[in-house]
Amino acid sequence: MNYKLMLRMLGRTLQVEALCLLVPLVVSLYYREDPLPFLYTILPVAILGTLLSRLKARAEFFSREGFTVVGLIWLAFCLFGALPFWFSGEFASFGDCFFESASGFTTTGGTALADIESLPRGILFWRAFSSWIGGMGVLIFTMAFLPKVGGRSQTLFRAEVPGPVSTKLVPQTAHASQILYLMYFVLTGAELVALRIAGMPWFDAITTTFSCVCTAGFSVMNQSLGAYNLPACEIIAIVFMILGSLNFAVFFLVITGRARQALRSDELKFFLGILGVVSLLVFWNILPLYDTAGHALRDAVFQVTSLISTSGFSTVDYNLWPTFSQTLLLLLMFVGGCSGSTAGSIKCGRILLLLRSSTRSILRLSHPRAVKVVKLDGKPVNEETLGSVFSFFVCYFLLLGLGSVVVSLDGHSLISSFTAALGCLSNVGPGLDLVGPFGNFSSFSEFNKIFLGVLMLVGRLEIFPILLLFHPSTWRRT
Amino acid sequence: MNYKLMLRMLGRTLQVEALCLLVPLVVSLYYREDPLPFLYTILPVAILGTLLSRLKARAEFFSREGFTVVGLIWLAFCLFGALPFWFSGEFASFGDCFFESASGFTTTGGTALADIESLPRGILFWRAFSSWIGGMGVLIFTMAFLPKVGGRSQTLFRAEVPGPVSTKLVPQTAHASQILYLMYFVLTGAELVALRIAGMPWFDAITTTFSCVCTAGFSVMNQSLGAYNLPACEIIAIVFMILGSLNFAVFFLVITGRARQALRSDELKFFLGILGVVSLLVFWNILPLYDTAGHALRDAVFQVTSLISTSGFSTVDYNLWPTFSQTLLLLLMFVGGCSGSTAGSIKCGRILLLLRSSTRSILRLSHPRAVKVVKLDGKPVNEETLGSVFSFFVCYFLLLGLGSVVVSLDGHSLISSFTAALGCLSNVGPGLDLVGPFGNFSSFSEFNKIFLGVLMLVGRLEIFPILLLFHPSTWRRT
Repeated sequence: MNYKLMLRMLGRTLQVEALCLLVPLVVSLYYREDPLPFLYTILPVAILGTLLSRLKARAEFFSREGFTVVGLIWLAFCLFGALPFWFSGEFASFGDCFFESASGFTTTGGTALADIESLPRGILFWRAFSSWIGGMGVLIFTMAFLPKVGGRSQTLFRAEVPGPVSTKLVPQTAHASQILYLMYFVLTGAELVALRIAGMPWFDAITTTFSCVCTAGFSVMNQSLGAYNLPACEIIAIVFMILGSLNFAVFFLVITGRARQALRSDELKFFLGILGVVSLLVFWNILPLYDTAGHALRDAVFQVTSLISTSGFSTVDYNLWPTFSQTLLLLLMFVGGCSGSTAGSIKCGRILLLLRSSTRSILRLSHPRAVKVVKLDGKPVNEETLGSVFSFFVCYFLLLGLGSVVVSLDGHSLISSFTAALGCLSNVGPGLDLVGPFGNFSSFSEFNKIFLGVLMLVGRLEIFPILLLFHPSTWRRT
Repeated sequence: MNYKLMLRMLGRTLQVEALCLLVPLVVSLYYREDPLPFLYTILPVAILGTLLSRLKARAEFFSREGFTVVGLIWLAFCLFGALPFWFSGEFASFGDCFFESASGFTTTGGTALADIESLPRGILFWRAFSSWIGGMGVLIFTMAFLPKVGGRSQTLFRAEVPGPVSTKLVPQTAHASQILYLMYFVLTGAELVALRIAGMPWFDAITTTFSCVCTAGFSVMNQSLGAYNLPACEIIAIVFMILGSLNFAVFFLVITGRARQALRSDELKFFLGILGVVSLLVFWNILPLYDTAGHALRDAVFQVTSLISTSGFSTVDYNLWPTFSQTLLLLLMFVGGCSGSTAGSIKCGRILLLLRSSTRSILRLSHPRAVKVVKLDGKPVNEETLGSVFSFFVCYFLLLGLGSVVVSLDGHSLISSFTAALGCLSNVGPGLDLVGPFGNFSSFSEFNKIFLGVLMLVGRLEIFPILLLFHPSTWRRT
């Protein structure tokens, strides 16, 4: 392990975090709030970052170092990002602060706070802004600032971009990553303008936008978007949650005049298909509870979009919906958006490959000699990728099971424990019952808040890199 | 498709079912109960079976015919096996009868009855006896009676024996299958004698034994084994549930003097390891609820064994246990016993392969060029088998998700709907909440009882053969 190089990279990213923290500092000064929580954080982070970034190191860099440093950097961002919460004095314990910070950077959007609205605006802004930073991935975000390490920065990139087909679809050069940021900025700007026009106050529009384009789902209101009662804003949020769940390569193709190619994507069709079908089923199921079909349709589409995109915004308490709708929403938490997006969970691309590969296995029973290749977008997918996708699926359910067992130690209901683990591992945020749409994680123990925060990180980094850290071969000298 | 041959095979097995039905007929005559429900069933089944078995057919027989006829025969057994329930007039609808019959033949052991104890003894006997017949598989049971079809009877056998490694461990010839029956009879006899000595009445001991060695879990009491309050019987049931969950090849090896080889089985160690660890965790968790540690330990081991073996017997209402224990028990329903046993669910052998194969995928990230072979019992497992095991895992969760959605249409709680689908697909029987240890499926709709019955069949036949029936290529002329 090239520890010095890893620490130098960590130092650079901490410098970036210190820069990011200047934004909420300005916000708190603007609202004449106490700026000390941010100052107390910025100083040590900037100093530590600068010291570490001056380390001299060999330029040798391999896969395992890439995965380790990614895990390290995310963990450091969450830990230092929790300091403003801690210094603000608004949180009961450091576990709460870490949970909230991890929830932000991993774009999960679950909260440990029982009362969000009582927080200072600077702190509320930092919550939303941290999720926006997390959205494109700390490392993609800071890639341009990192030194080129013998042309190996793609190794980092590979650990970062969610989904199985990232290497094929997402452009990998530094130039292309700048185009990604640009699209992210354009989406952010567009949603902000739209929400503002639709009548949301400036501060709420900014924080909601930050937490929406990255599919996190933090709100500054206890009742999430349901608090505003502005149907136009809900529809805008639906549109941007969907856009945030698409593979960013789709935008890239559309901008470069290849819209037709983008629309032919198997994963895109699959994602929109599920979104449409489940929305209709939920709509049909909840219709009797509503006065107008329009309102029922809006709430159905909103919640379906919110959960499949792993955002977690709410306009209604779906804890009160019939079991059929709740079951459908729960299943969506396993699906997630498209690969190469900011959405979490298993993701549509993987599910499509799992389905096609399983169909092949079943057909082999009756046609043992038929060797069929599994395809995506008309191109064959190699067996190693399929094995890796299957393994992801297994590890995902394994961690979900173990996670539920650990969380259940707190003694909350089975549904609360299970959906808490699911919501965090899948980076959705809310679940059902106690952690439902208008609920929160405040009643969980200190231990479980930290555990759930780590679970978010595991999910955000697509499980494998973190599990790899626990294998002795990663730490063996070569 | 060689329909005539398939119908002839169906005919032969129906003749066997008619013979089996003579046993409960004798029981009902012995207790001076109405024998008509059995007579009304035996006559048409015997006549239909004889007519079909006289069909003349070509001897051509391929895999797809094997899978189709297996599905057909199980379905026919469940449908005709439901007739005595129907004619008894004790069941509310034919859906209830089909559910109970499918629950028996698939060794699931869930009941649609709110009050079991009010049933005639002949009917109670038929429930238990049908699960015993199902235990070794209708087809293994009747294999000796089937005509040798160009040496292809192994094709049938392959569809039948549960688990991924059946082809390796379980002896495949007709001679070996006779040894299997013999062991099954010996287990049955041994448990019957033990329960009788421990103080259980004859009728209860016989029915409990029939439903225990096959890991079904039907009881003749509403409170399951908890009704007897006989600790010795509970311990006997624990032993035989464990024996019923072992790969029958283990007994074969022990009998033929290769006990050491049997004990080296990776799957056996894994199964016993989970059983031990989870028992201790549950024991630790429920200890404060009990007066004596012995009682707590017995209940913990009993419920853990009952659920991992997919039996579903109960001595206590674990709906009242802490969430931690409930979560562990729920996870055990996904595990199941060893392959080549009468247990259902995913099974330890598969889980072991999934874990090893996933570990390999993760290690490939840091050592991309390392090509490692996945091994079981020291022998390499080929990639196609691994792909098939992964696919099974995917289909299992897919069916569980879809099953939960369908069951949730009845509007029962999320936990009731989910564990009902899980309990049936995994052939466990009970779940939690409404379908908990002392609960039942009586409050589900007619549609869902039939649906859950079919789900049991899908689980019992290891999913693939049934899914294959829905693929057009199975029905295409060649």
